[in-house]
Amino acid sequence: KSPRDWGIQIGVLPIGKSNSITDVSGVKVGHVTLHAGDSVRTGVTAILPHGGNIFQQKVPAAVFAGNGFGKLAGSTQLTELGNLESPIILTNTLSVPIAMDAVIDYVLALPGNENVQSVNAVVGETNDGYLNDIRGRHVKKEDVLAAIRQASEDRPSEGSVGAGTGTVCFGFKGGIGTASRQLPGSLGGYTVGVLVQTNFGGVLQINGLPVGKQLGTFEFSDRLLNNVDGSCMIIVATDAPLDSRNLERLAKRAFMGLAKTGGIASNGSGDYVISFSSAPQVRIPFRSDATLQSVSLVPNDLMSPLFMAAIEATEEAIISSLFAAITTVGKAGRKVEAIPIEKILPLLPAKD
Amino acid sequence: KSPRDWGIQIGVLPIGKSNSITDVSGVKVGHVTLHAGDSVRTGVTAILPHGGNIFQQKVPAAVFAGNGFGKLAGSTQLTELGNLESPIILTNTLSVPIAMDAVIDYVLALPGNENVQSVNAVVGETNDGYLNDIRGRHVKKEDVLAAIRQASEDRPSEGSVGAGTGTVCFGFKGGIGTASRQLPGSLGGYTVGVLVQTNFGGVLQINGLPVGKQLGTFEFSDRLLNNVDGSCMIIVATDAPLDSRNLERLAKRAFMGLAKTGGIASNGSGDYVISFSSAPQVRIPFRSDATLQSVSLVPNDLMSPLFMAAIEATEEAIISSLFAAITTVGKAGRKVEAIPIEKILPLLPAKD
Amino acid sequence: KSPRDWGIQIGVLPIGKSNSITDVSGVKVGHVTLHAGDSVRTGVTAILPHGGNIFQQKVPAAVFAGNGFGKLAGSTQLTELGNLESPIILTNTLSVPIAMDAVIDYVLALPGNENVQSVNAVVGETNDGYLNDIRGRHVKKEDVLAAIRQASEDRPSEGSVGAGTGTVCFGFKGGIGTASRQLPGSLGGYTVGVLVQTNFGGVLQINGLPVGKQLGTFEFSDRLLNNVDGSCMIIVATDAPLDSRNLERLAKRAFMGLAKTGGIASNGSGDYVISFSSAPQVRIPFRSDATLQSVSLVPNDLMSPLFMAAIEATEEAIISSLFAAITTVGKAGRKVEAIPIEKILPLLPAKD
Amino acid sequence: KSPRDWGIQIGVLPIGKSNSITDVSGVKVGHVTLHAGDSVRTGVTAILPHGGNIFQQKVPAAVFAGNGFGKLAGSTQLTELGNLESPIILTNTLSVPIAMDAVIDYVLALPGNENVQSVNAVVGETNDGYLNDIRGRHVKKEDVLAAIRQASEDRPSEGSVGAGTGTVCFGFKGGIGTASRQLPGSLGGYTVGVLVQTNFGGVLQINGLPVGKQLGTFEFSDRLLNNVDGSCMIIVATDAPLDSRNLERLAKRAFMGLAKTGGIASNGSGDYVISFSSAPQVRIPFRSDATLQSVSLVPNDLMSPLFMAAIEATEEAIISSLFAAITTVGKAGRKVEAIPIEKILPLLPAKD
Repeated sequence: KSPRDWGIQIGVLPIGKSNSITDVSGVKVGHVTLHAGDSVRTGVTAILPHGGNIFQQKVPAAVFAGNGFGKLAGSTQLTELGNLESPIILTNTLSVPIAMDAVIDYVLALPGNENVQSVNAVVGETNDGYLNDIRGRHVKKEDVLAAIRQASEDRPSEGSVGAGTGTVCFGFKGGIGTASRQLPGSLGGYTVGVLVQTNFGGVLQINGLPVGKQLGTFEFSDRLLNNVDGSCMIIVATDAPLDSRNLERLAKRAFMGLAKTGGIASNGSGDYVISFSSAPQVRIPFRSDATLQSVSLVPNDLMSPLFMAAIEATEEAIISSLFAAITTVGKAGRKVEAIPIEKILPLLPAKD
Repeated sequence: KSPRDWGIQIGVLPIGKSNSITDVSGVKVGHVTLHAGDSVRTGVTAILPHGGNIFQQKVPAAVFAGNGFGKLAGSTQLTELGNLESPIILTNTLSVPIAMDAVIDYVLALPGNENVQSVNAVVGETNDGYLNDIRGRHVKKEDVLAAIRQASEDRPSEGSVGAGTGTVCFGFKGGIGTASRQLPGSLGGYTVGVLVQTNFGGVLQINGLPVGKQLGTFEFSDRLLNNVDGSCMIIVATDAPLDSRNLERLAKRAFMGLAKTGGIASNGSGDYVISFSSAPQVRIPFRSDATLQSVSLVPNDLMSPLFMAAIEATEEAIISSLFAAITTVGKAGRKVEAIPIEKILPLLPAKD
Repeated sequence: KSPRDWGIQIGVLPIGKSNSITDVSGVKVGHVTLHAGDSVRTGVTAILPHGGNIFQQKVPAAVFAGNGFGKLAGSTQLTELGNLESPIILTNTLSVPIAMDAVIDYVLALPGNENVQSVNAVVGETNDGYLNDIRGRHVKKEDVLAAIRQASEDRPSEGSVGAGTGTVCFGFKGGIGTASRQLPGSLGGYTVGVLVQTNFGGVLQINGLPVGKQLGTFEFSDRLLNNVDGSCMIIVATDAPLDSRNLERLAKRAFMGLAKTGGIASNGSGDYVISFSSAPQVRIPFRSDATLQSVSLVPNDLMSPLFMAAIEATEEAIISSLFAAITTVGKAGRKVEAIPIEKILPLLPAKD
Repeated sequence: KSPRDWGIQIGVLPIGKSNSITDVSGVKVGHVTLHAGDSVRTGVTAILPHGGNIFQQKVPAAVFAGNGFGKLAGSTQLTELGNLESPIILTNTLSVPIAMDAVIDYVLALPGNENVQSVNAVVGETNDGYLNDIRGRHVKKEDVLAAIRQASEDRPSEGSVGAGTGTVCFGFKGGIGTASRQLPGSLGGYTVGVLVQTNFGGVLQINGLPVGKQLGTFEFSDRLLNNVDGSCMIIVATDAPLDSRNLERLAKRAFMGLAKTGGIASNGSGDYVISFSSAPQVRIPFRSDATLQSVSLVPNDLMSPLFMAAIEATEEAIISSLFAAITTVGKAGRKVEAIPIEKILPLLPAKD
């Protein structure tokens, strides 16, 4: 059951159709989960900004580094050119190279890309080495390609799946989470969808409720400083036609959503936000004879509702990842418990 | 009464001696409040990183722009050189130039600065034009110099004083707020102090409690988009010996504290954080014969507790500004109410 | 006589009509020169992106800090919003505040701006304190307003005028310089115009010729380290319809032009580039009912010729400032010689 | 023969012992050249900041993106933490992932790193797809490991070797180049060494001489716009004890050196500078019990000579790469000529 099923309503904006990143038209998500033997607890999650040849039809995009202790690949070109030309892959820290290699395979092999000699693979990661034999580098090219191939417009699975198979968040089992917001027509009617890979620490708050503090699961000298290799990858998609400058601003608001869950962006955390617009009219063709590109963009003055949507959807996606994740035993017999919902429910305010 | 007096305990870290930015050794704050006639509701707040000649003994510093719709002066030099060489002044948007001019006067006139020909004045602002006749530019050089002169190491006044005289926050009267955290000795024993000038919007949360939502003061189509000229200036001081890189990271965490109050960093908000270290051993002399500067710095790996302290102190400083501010009538007879504490208290959880 | 009059042809691209920033349609420049008594050697230069109400019709803009030891005002808002809403003013270091104040006066007083409460004044500076009694702060509001008022589309004067009255460059008298390039129609036909305020050091090269080295005016232990308060302000205008991201890239190329003159962007130099597009179709209205802004922009793939134009025009504008400046005696009887053209001519290659 | 052997003396500062990046104490370079069959023209160059376990003894470092159309891996973590923890690898665009994977192998296998679960591999590239069958991805892990293993403190080979085997620069055969400067003792006595991988375009200047223009090899409508996938990777090493902030400033000056060769940082160019300090006293231990790190750093005021050294060494390293490279035939029978030195010599000024 999702946080909303338990009566937890984060924010004030209406949610999208399925409360997921795939509410943004055209966006697809695919997972490959690697759960094998005693110590393989990892996987791959692929996010496709649209269903076509992304290299030939790039999308405006931006990156914000909340805390850059992470191996995110592809950010400098994405920032310089203001666009994304490949699926976004999430995986574990040491599997970033193999995922990049797979993305290159994928892009080079697409019909129409026969002469392409340069691919900017965008791959993010968190470190699942507490539960997963990360040094074993169990993710293979085929896993990445399968995640891309299987990507669909359905609501993606959450919790201990894909790149979230082995992650830990606020001392509980973390994983993949997703949520969305849809603005009312008077504010543009746009959808903002978020997908997160949660693997970070702090003092958990659920919709403002100081759960970490009240459950006593938080111990200052312990929780504060552990998980130094943790991270939170955040993907923000929108159908609002935005350029890369306003997408970067949107990405920064997702980091505010992380803050609201009690995350502290610790020194060892790789907290990156990648945002993109899937609006068909702002796509950037790889080659074009046109000497000017005509676009219709949301002006600065109308960005604030989108900002709020990104904050709310990110906060909810993180909490949703915790509610969906299941207790997992992994490397060296280590066990990470799912968040104890039965202990949290009594802390919730009575229904209004 | 402060939020703590009402039983509102934000965060898990211990507070400093007076729960204020002046808990950081050497830091001084001075206010000049301009409340005159029907429509002068503005002022000046000066923050001095130490009591000496700041130009001759610069302090390591950094700036983070959460949202840069603001007129902050001095940020590029501060960032390039990694230091601050003047008092920080806060005032209203259109009085930034006069405040800079006053800072230049002040620095040029200090004994020892007789040959100085270049001064980087750091001046922040928020727009108090809703209550204040901002176009009248009522702040004078003498007001700025008086704020500097009167600065003391006492706990500064909060609420509708100094640069907070005419500000509005979450639809209530905002103003100046301050708070601090002191790390336990095992984590370095350092103090982090924050001072804010609050003039922004969003959906108010007090220690996680959805006050804005529950009071119904929040109206989507209204509150979300108004106050487009609002802003939040945040000053973070610490006695931890940090270089500018880690001070920038610290500044970014203050922005997370803003997020936790429900701020959304709207398009029109100038949300800047200025952070500095007052530790004597990291000061940068204006002129020196030494070819190397020796410093002892907190390493990356020990930054996380400081990050958490900055988040908590910022969140509390913002809430504190609201609790201290008083109902104010200003320009065109406009009235902005103080936050209705009596309505909020019933929403608070019962004491544990 | 200009460098071209002496046979010095910098670069390979054709120049604009008057080889000046005002070749960019709509751009206006005005100077006020303050040369009085023994020691007032300063002034103001105003650059207007177009002839209308700039606040109501903002232009896309960007800033690049080559070396940020300078007091440039207005950069963070310009960067966040991607636009410029006021004339750009150049003056001396300690007169930045008065210039900002004058710009605010100017903007508030324009018809249509009666309710404006927020103005982002963009003011750059270099330090003319070697020749000028800079601590006397002789620039007055009226001087700034006069520079704006007198701005015209004519080719601006160069050398020891306006904000260049008291500057020193490569040990010679510097000042204001300007140049332009016009791309052939096959590459878009756009014009790039540059105006510089030169006050920096290094090892002078003129069109690649090692003049500083050959004249022996360069002395390592001397020239390298003096002028630590020097700077070079560079303004780049174009009629190419560019967004702020590509304008920032264009600004970065102007810094490459500075490099080609032998500038080293020394520690004490405030080397900033401000770039903007004057193309009418990309202007940003202050208030608008439109929910989308439609723009036609030059795509990334066609930027390289514009980059080259910015490099060439900046290099030429700097050299042009040296050729136009005249020997000046100022504060404390100090004398700075004009560049000795008669010694340089023999060093030039024979005409091809 | 090097440019100096032909009488081309770039700049005014003295060169280091061998005029190479390995003049910086401890720095090692290794090449693996892949020249096979008709169309394999690629390779790997490894730069080691010191001879020990770099992960355990990280070095302060910074990155500057002159133009970010490139796949540089590892930059965000390097920037956030201000350090480098692995060898730097240069290779071709599509081989970045395999090089990262090899670096991870290398670091995980080092004695002392048995429990390491996170490695930030820093890998740069240029696109050698004109001469090389880049889509064939001929670089293997073993090639990367061999380049690391073979790295030595000897002066590295230049020209068509290692990562420069298949590159093209200014229309001529490019490749690897290196140079250094050693400051006089009065300015610190520090060494700055540079290594470049040249694969970019523009209008070639050799020590200021307009060779591209004079040889007529430059054709506006042709040369300007081709090589859109070109790039220049620049590595700057110094034994000066610098923190990451001043290393970033140093990196920016290397970009100025590129400008002086006539490079324009075209839209399609990935022009990145990575700078690091090899000074033993500023190394950052992976794990440490110390709560403070004591360092002695060069202050801002003494940076200018280092800036000048970086500019000069970069300019010379680029020209040196052209002089060392040899005519190469590659993919599809394409032939890229070495720079025709015999045509350039007559253009040089007579010896002084």
